[in-house]
Amino acid sequence: MRFSDIGERSLIFRITGLLGGLEHDDCAVIELDGDCLVVTTDMLHRETDFPAQATPWQIGWMSAAVNLSDIAAMGAEPLGILIASGIPPETDVEIIDEIFRGIRDCVRAYGTEVLGGDTDAHRELTICGTALGRVSRERILRRRGARPGDLLCTTGSLGGAGAGLKALDIGRFDLARRLLEPRPRVREGIALARTGAVTAMMDNSDGLALSLHDLADAGGTGFMVEYWRIPLADEVREIAESDEEALEMVLSAGGDFELLFTVREDMIDDARKACELSVIGRAVEDGVWLERDGRRIPISRRGYEHGSRDVRSAPG
Amino acid sequence: MRFSDIGERSLIFRITGLLGGLEHDDCAVIELDGDCLVVTTDMLHRETDFPAQATPWQIGWMSAAVNLSDIAAMGAEPLGILIASGIPPETDVEIIDEIFRGIRDCVRAYGTEVLGGDTDAHRELTICGTALGRVSRERILRRRGARPGDLLCTTGSLGGAGAGLKALDIGRFDLARRLLEPRPRVREGIALARTGAVTAMMDNSDGLALSLHDLADAGGTGFMVEYWRIPLADEVREIAESDEEALEMVLSAGGDFELLFTVREDMIDDARKACELSVIGRAVEDGVWLERDGRRIPISRRGYEHGSRDVRSAPG
Repeated sequence: MRFSDIGERSLIFRITGLLGGLEHDDCAVIELDGDCLVVTTDMLHRETDFPAQATPWQIGWMSAAVNLSDIAAMGAEPLGILIASGIPPETDVEIIDEIFRGIRDCVRAYGTEVLGGDTDAHRELTICGTALGRVSRERILRRRGARPGDLLCTTGSLGGAGAGLKALDIGRFDLARRLLEPRPRVREGIALARTGAVTAMMDNSDGLALSLHDLADAGGTGFMVEYWRIPLADEVREIAESDEEALEMVLSAGGDFELLFTVREDMIDDARKACELSVIGRAVEDGVWLERDGRRIPISRRGYEHGSRDVRSAPG
Repeated sequence: MRFSDIGERSLIFRITGLLGGLEHDDCAVIELDGDCLVVTTDMLHRETDFPAQATPWQIGWMSAAVNLSDIAAMGAEPLGILIASGIPPETDVEIIDEIFRGIRDCVRAYGTEVLGGDTDAHRELTICGTALGRVSRERILRRRGARPGDLLCTTGSLGGAGAGLKALDIGRFDLARRLLEPRPRVREGIALARTGAVTAMMDNSDGLALSLHDLADAGGTGFMVEYWRIPLADEVREIAESDEEALEMVLSAGGDFELLFTVREDMIDDARKACELSVIGRAVEDGVWLERDGRRIPISRRGYEHGSRDVRSAPG
């Protein structure tokens, strides 16, 4: 049996079992005195993780941003990142400079820094970032914790990255910036954690559908999303050609890097004071549903599953 | 100008300048309250970093061990590691299990654990480990700190990994275990840090010659190694065919993962109580020298420079 036969998620399940079980959150958590240290790592490859049209600067920016988004999803303040990079030997050093300028500009934009790393030669450009953050033990936000009745919320708008993928396909590069230069919700994550109103949180980097299922699995609840409440990204309104296509951009495409979280209903005003947010539904007993035209439609566990896309597209 | 034109070390110098300057230690350091958090990341590739004969279990062990060695080199206690892995889709899942068993067995042998990670598909097996550790601010050991007159010391014996490389070439697999299953000096690093006797430390993972130059550059000193004091590994005595070959195994081959450190002369007994060590020379004003047959021979900055080996062997 091969990796490609079982896919990424089954493999991760298998490995975590072998390692003695790990909690599935956006970051690993180490308890240190009164604080929690949170750590995340993401390995990105040129062909499978970065759109072909991404500039070197954008490749750098994305590499830092995806890791900072995981820190944000725990409600933590970033402490810094490390960058291990495998770079093809024929790469022009000016291009390498641009990649690292993108990394630097992203970490500075979020008030943090590159702490160190590792660089060697590799056939395909591969950037593995590790981000660290800190949050107090009482404030840390995990994927588990939602209770039926809690309000389901998102920061920002949804579908912008999915719209960006289509924009690149049709040459509308002006609409792809959201995809190529994601803005992790670091400030919002910290502010939300401080309210004490949030019961569970993650980022929606794999698309809304998969993220809802992950949040449901972690908390032992379900979710009902109300169609009319979904804050569609401007890019979606601009480029989608139907309701259905717009919904697909929201549910299935990865890369929005918004925070998806649940809030105690009696404390929603506190959460609203922390940052701009949209209530898009509620936690329910079980199932992941979309309410639309008075009907409950199940939302399947589809979307941007990193491994399976890679498995299909990788050679061999 | 291409990466291959300038090599790994020049590229790192360029990148660290662009990022605003970084101290060159085995780990990045984050000061947290009274403690220092230390973090290191290493990206390893199947073709350039693991001998072809390494078993999947050994690949896993090595991936964890190289990172734990960097934690040890700071005098820190490991808090855990994260493993990001890019795995070819055609890989048999039993082989993947074995890799992760090797990782698990290594971290458990050093009293720590795998905290999390990331897994996706990639053309060439790539394992990027990140290790975290903790050490008090007064005890942390860095590469800078040696003063002329300090005793230069090593844990264990030297050249075993270099001998292992030759052993693999000639089919003496019994002599390659030190290369394939390195033992990071975690306990020794912690114990040495506690003595207060050590003035500078790093691991010798790139070979003794390059490590001495790195330690000299960091501290603004030089070193004199006394030939007759070098504790040759048993594998070197077994397999080297001349003095010169034995010395090359010590100086130029990477992979021993011993600790190389300096000790205040008046406190050498304290260091000896912490762990078994060999004094191999002294810190001097400048230059990196070998004293042999009454002569001072300069030791050049050669040895296992990761990038340049990769750059030469990588395709393209």
